[in-house]
Amino acid sequence: MVLPFDILEYQSRLKKTKERMADKGIEVLLITDPANMNYLSGYDAWSFYVHQMLVIMIDEPQPIWIGRFQDANGARVKTWIYDENIISYPDYYVHSSVYHPMDFISEILTQIGQGTRNVGVEMDHYYFTAMALDRLKRGMPNANFHDASLLVNGVRIVKSDQEIEYMKRAATIADLAMTKGVESIRAGGRECDTAAEIYYHMVRGTSEFGGDYPAIVPLLPTGENTSIPHLTWTDRPFVEGSAVIVELAGCYKRYHVPLARTVSIGQPSERLNNLSSVVTEGIQNVLQAAKPGMTCSDLEEVWGKSIQKYGFEKESRLGYSVGLNYPPDWGEHTASIRKGDNTVLQPNMTFHLIPALWFDSDGIEISETFRVTETGSERFTTYPQELIVRNDPFNISSNGQIS
Amino acid sequence: MVLPFDILEYQSRLKKTKERMADKGIEVLLITDPANMNYLSGYDAWSFYVHQMLVIMIDEPQPIWIGRFQDANGARVKTWIYDENIISYPDYYVHSSVYHPMDFISEILTQIGQGTRNVGVEMDHYYFTAMALDRLKRGMPNANFHDASLLVNGVRIVKSDQEIEYMKRAATIADLAMTKGVESIRAGGRECDTAAEIYYHMVRGTSEFGGDYPAIVPLLPTGENTSIPHLTWTDRPFVEGSAVIVELAGCYKRYHVPLARTVSIGQPSERLNNLSSVVTEGIQNVLQAAKPGMTCSDLEEVWGKSIQKYGFEKESRLGYSVGLNYPPDWGEHTASIRKGDNTVLQPNMTFHLIPALWFDSDGIEISETFRVTETGSERFTTYPQELIVRNDPFNISSNGQIS
Repeated sequence: MVLPFDILEYQSRLKKTKERMADKGIEVLLITDPANMNYLSGYDAWSFYVHQMLVIMIDEPQPIWIGRFQDANGARVKTWIYDENIISYPDYYVHSSVYHPMDFISEILTQIGQGTRNVGVEMDHYYFTAMALDRLKRGMPNANFHDASLLVNGVRIVKSDQEIEYMKRAATIADLAMTKGVESIRAGGRECDTAAEIYYHMVRGTSEFGGDYPAIVPLLPTGENTSIPHLTWTDRPFVEGSAVIVELAGCYKRYHVPLARTVSIGQPSERLNNLSSVVTEGIQNVLQAAKPGMTCSDLEEVWGKSIQKYGFEKESRLGYSVGLNYPPDWGEHTASIRKGDNTVLQPNMTFHLIPALWFDSDGIEISETFRVTETGSERFTTYPQELIVRNDPFNISSNGQIS
Repeated sequence: MVLPFDILEYQSRLKKTKERMADKGIEVLLITDPANMNYLSGYDAWSFYVHQMLVIMIDEPQPIWIGRFQDANGARVKTWIYDENIISYPDYYVHSSVYHPMDFISEILTQIGQGTRNVGVEMDHYYFTAMALDRLKRGMPNANFHDASLLVNGVRIVKSDQEIEYMKRAATIADLAMTKGVESIRAGGRECDTAAEIYYHMVRGTSEFGGDYPAIVPLLPTGENTSIPHLTWTDRPFVEGSAVIVELAGCYKRYHVPLARTVSIGQPSERLNNLSSVVTEGIQNVLQAAKPGMTCSDLEEVWGKSIQKYGFEKESRLGYSVGLNYPPDWGEHTASIRKGDNTVLQPNMTFHLIPALWFDSDGIEISETFRVTETGSERFTTYPQELIVRNDPFNISSNGQIS
């Protein structure tokens, strides 16, 4: 099987990871975040619902993959790791009240001489449970455990040219899915019909390349629920005169380009038009300002000034670093575009800028995913950056004709 | 907003949960598993990528929902919880290296007098990270923490009639998605095209009711990868003469009915035909035997005897309890159909029986989701329980006609 990146790229990622380990005094890094496992090894499978990990030893050239027996073949074909470094636990460890995979793993780590070292764990990552740490500590009582949350994510924040290329493909898929999704929105159509349309195109991709599943499902809040960003679709029909927020991502080889738009079914209210102008002006100001050397906090200031003059302020962050990921989030959890985040922009950092405004009973989302270039920033997608108005083609127009 | 269940059903679930808390000496239960949060409160949103919880106090009639500010409106409309029991933390707690939501939460719990009690946490559930426990313990140094993993899942294992009704709808969607997915499989078609077709119908549902997103993406291993169950689709074309495993679930209001079939593109090999007979005979034997009073381990024995006479044995479990869930798993992590699992079958328990056989370079999956009835068991889906053979309609048949 062909890996999505050259083996030298994986090795360079591993080298940078080891440098960060050395800085923190970590000799053995236990990676349980599926995006970080993929980033360093190529491993890509829906197996993160059982405990699994990648072990990075600072003085060993190859990682070790440890997971469930039935997933080991996947590690053999989807990674650059030698077969002898792929170790699997029997099925009776899965979802058992007696056996725990971390017992098996700590036993292995002890056997190969890692049981008394400084061990880094991804303390606050999905899928590394409180129990996982507890059992590891019990199984390796002489190891020193350190928090290595976001250690690998810190390497991931600057993309390689190949990663940018994959994100460009994801952007093509995002544009396509948004186009088809929006076309399906009309009064009387159901939310689930539009979600289905979006999913179809996200997954099918183009005739040149297929799409991948996104780390977050398409979100389609409508009507009053536009004030509630994370509700998922229902089978209720869209209503003439209401608004729909569409937030989705194109995904290619696990790389995401998210995109959000607000759609008015029929003529928009003056309020929605105004909100839209405020948000798009703010986005344009941020994208124009963004360049290497600025901080995320600086970008927030640009936004704040831009909306302040219209009397608005925003409680939540404006955006976040984005790229390779698995459910439940496409954000990388490193840099956020908000006050006090002093991450300095560098070329090939990539962000989802989503300066949504939510109120008690409505809201607006218009977003752009952008890349920091050598001199500024550039958008990934080409979808019109505006409030989208859907006039139902089956409506009878004022002159009595079916338009 | 109308909740999917009567408020009395939520209260009955809460009562059963409190009985289990009392048995374990737990006074305050912190529920972070999104399925358990939904089960007890109705809360349903894609917000589990940030820390959130439901607090059950043994002596209070209402749970407390604590989550992110922008998600609090969702808790107000999607739960039966009074607005004053919905508490939210500011956005600067999200994915921050300084602030942690569990600091906020432990402060609240202390303020309302829960800081010195016996506190249950879901130690080994997704989304309850090692860091989450660490910060809670730091914030509530005088509380006694207990492992309450699977406490609520234990209540969930027996379904109500309304839950079964939702699973029947999920089954209708599973049958539909399998039918449409299989119809799209032909030599030269791409894996992603079939995945897109499946997703479209899973999400769209029927004209009577819409579908929901499944907790696991459709899995489509093909060719040699049929030995690797959890690889996701690619954009490679299907090959004449090869096999494809299709594993999917219909989902309705977060209730799942999974279904797996193996499809031969063109005439199947004798080996695949044989494997298929062995597996379907085993499934029929298990379904015929299943009835209240038997244990999961008994079912495994039925299966073992059934395949033993053909010289096969199976390393991994045959199935697991299934129902309400969120990514990354539709399994409930309570009962598994395997040796040594002494869970006694009761009416309205529901299982995904997936006695897959995987070998070094091929595999077969045929599965059924079933309900334990008063006297036996019944399948949820109606899709033919056999090896599916796809003869490409565009192939020229032996008599030179396009069939």
